[in-house]
Amino acid sequence: MSFSPLIQQLVTALRCLPGVGPKSAQRMAFHLLERDRNAALELSSALRLAAEQVSQCQQCRTLSETDLCQLCASSSRDRSSLCVLESPMDVLAIEHTNSFGGVYFVLGGHLSPIDGVGPDDIGIQQLLERINEGEIKEVILATNPTVEGDATAHYIAEQLKRESLKVTRIAHGVPVGGELEYVDGGTLAHALAGRRLL
Amino acid sequence: MSFSPLIQQLVTALRCLPGVGPKSAQRMAFHLLERDRNAALELSSALRLAAEQVSQCQQCRTLSETDLCQLCASSSRDRSSLCVLESPMDVLAIEHTNSFGGVYFVLGGHLSPIDGVGPDDIGIQQLLERINEGEIKEVILATNPTVEGDATAHYIAEQLKRESLKVTRIAHGVPVGGELEYVDGGTLAHALAGRRLL
Ligand SMILES: [Zn+2]
Ligand SMILES: [Zn+2]
Repeated sequence: MSFSPLIQQLVTALRCLPGVGPKSAQRMAFHLLERDRNAALELSSALRLAAEQVSQCQQCRTLSETDLCQLCASSSRDRSSLCVLESPMDVLAIEHTNSFGGVYFVLGGHLSPIDGVGPDDIGIQQLLERINEGEIKEVILATNPTVEGDATAHYIAEQLKRESLKVTRIAHGVPVGGELEYVDGGTLAHALAGRRLL
Repeated sequence: MSFSPLIQQLVTALRCLPGVGPKSAQRMAFHLLERDRNAALELSSALRLAAEQVSQCQQCRTLSETDLCQLCASSSRDRSSLCVLESPMDVLAIEHTNSFGGVYFVLGGHLSPIDGVGPDDIGIQQLLERINEGEIKEVILATNPTVEGDATAHYIAEQLKRESLKVTRIAHGVPVGGELEYVDGGTLAHALAGRRLL
C-alpha cells in the first residue's frame, strides 16, 4: 500500500535528514501527525527561518544569521591564535574540549581538484587577508586528518611561510582517516596540546 | 558555547522527532544548513502541509487528507471483515503481511481510565454504528498485546455480543523465528495457554 500524497511527501522529505531511513521516516511522520502537530508546525517554521536567514559569519565563515558570530563578536577570545577548520561542526568539537581560547576560520570544505574544489572555493584569499592584518601570531591547521585535509593544511602552510608567523598542525593522536566531529573531546584536547610546527 | 538563535531553534525543534537526541539534532541541523538548504525548505513545506491538511478518514479513522482513505475507497477489499487497530502505523504493519484483505477501523489509542481515555475518545460509537450497518460479518480485534490493548479488545467484544457477528482476537504467542529463551514469560504463558492440537 502507499500513503496518501501529503503523508508520502512528508515521509520522502524526512529522508533528507542524515541517518534517517525509510522506516524511521515513516515512524517520524506518523508520530508527528498522530501526536504532535504543533511540533510539526514549529519544526516547519524553524527549518524555513534557518534555511532562509542563516548565512556565514563575515569574519570566520561559520554558520551565523548575524554578520559576526558569537565567537568572533566575543571580547574574551585570544585574537592572536587562529584555528582553521573544515566545517562549522568542527568549531563545536573544538569548543567542547575547553582547551582553545582563540578564534576560528571555517574553510567550508577541503581542497579537492578531482571535484573542482580549489583555493577560492574554501576561502583561502579571505584567510590570507585576515592573517595579513597582522594580529594573528599562530595559525593552527585543524583540518580533518584525511588525505584531503592534510593536503589542504600543507597548501595553506605553504602560503603562510614568513618569519613572524607560527603555523602548526594538530598532532597525530587524532585517528587517521576519521572526521573531527566524531572524535571524543579528550583525544581532541591531546591533539591540540601536541600540535607541532609545520 | 551556544549556537546562534535560529540554529539553536532548529536544533531544539528537531528534537521533537522520535529517536533524535541532542547530537543527532545538531548533525541534522548543520547537514541541512551546510549542504542542503533546498531539502530543508522542502521538508519545511511538507511538514506544514501535512500538519495542516492531513485529517482522518471518515470511515476508518486512519490518517488521510481525503474524506476516504485509499483502502476505504478501494473496490477490491472484502467489506465483510473488519480489523480494529490502535494506530495508523498498525494498518501498515498488517498490510505488509499481505495476509488480510478486509477493511480497518483505527481507534487512535486504547482505553485508559487513569489517563481519562474513555470509549468516546477512541471512536467506539462510530465503530458500533459502522458494524450496525450489517455488512460486516467478522470483527478482528488487533489492539496491542498489552494490558490496555487486551482490556480495550474485551470491552469492544462485550459491546458486540450478538448471534450474527464473529468477534475474534489475534493470537498471542511466540514470535515466528524467535528463540524460546529470549521470549518474555508473559508471552510464553500465553503461547502455552493457547496451544493447539497438531
Ligand atoms: Zn565568526
Ligand atoms: Zn479509511
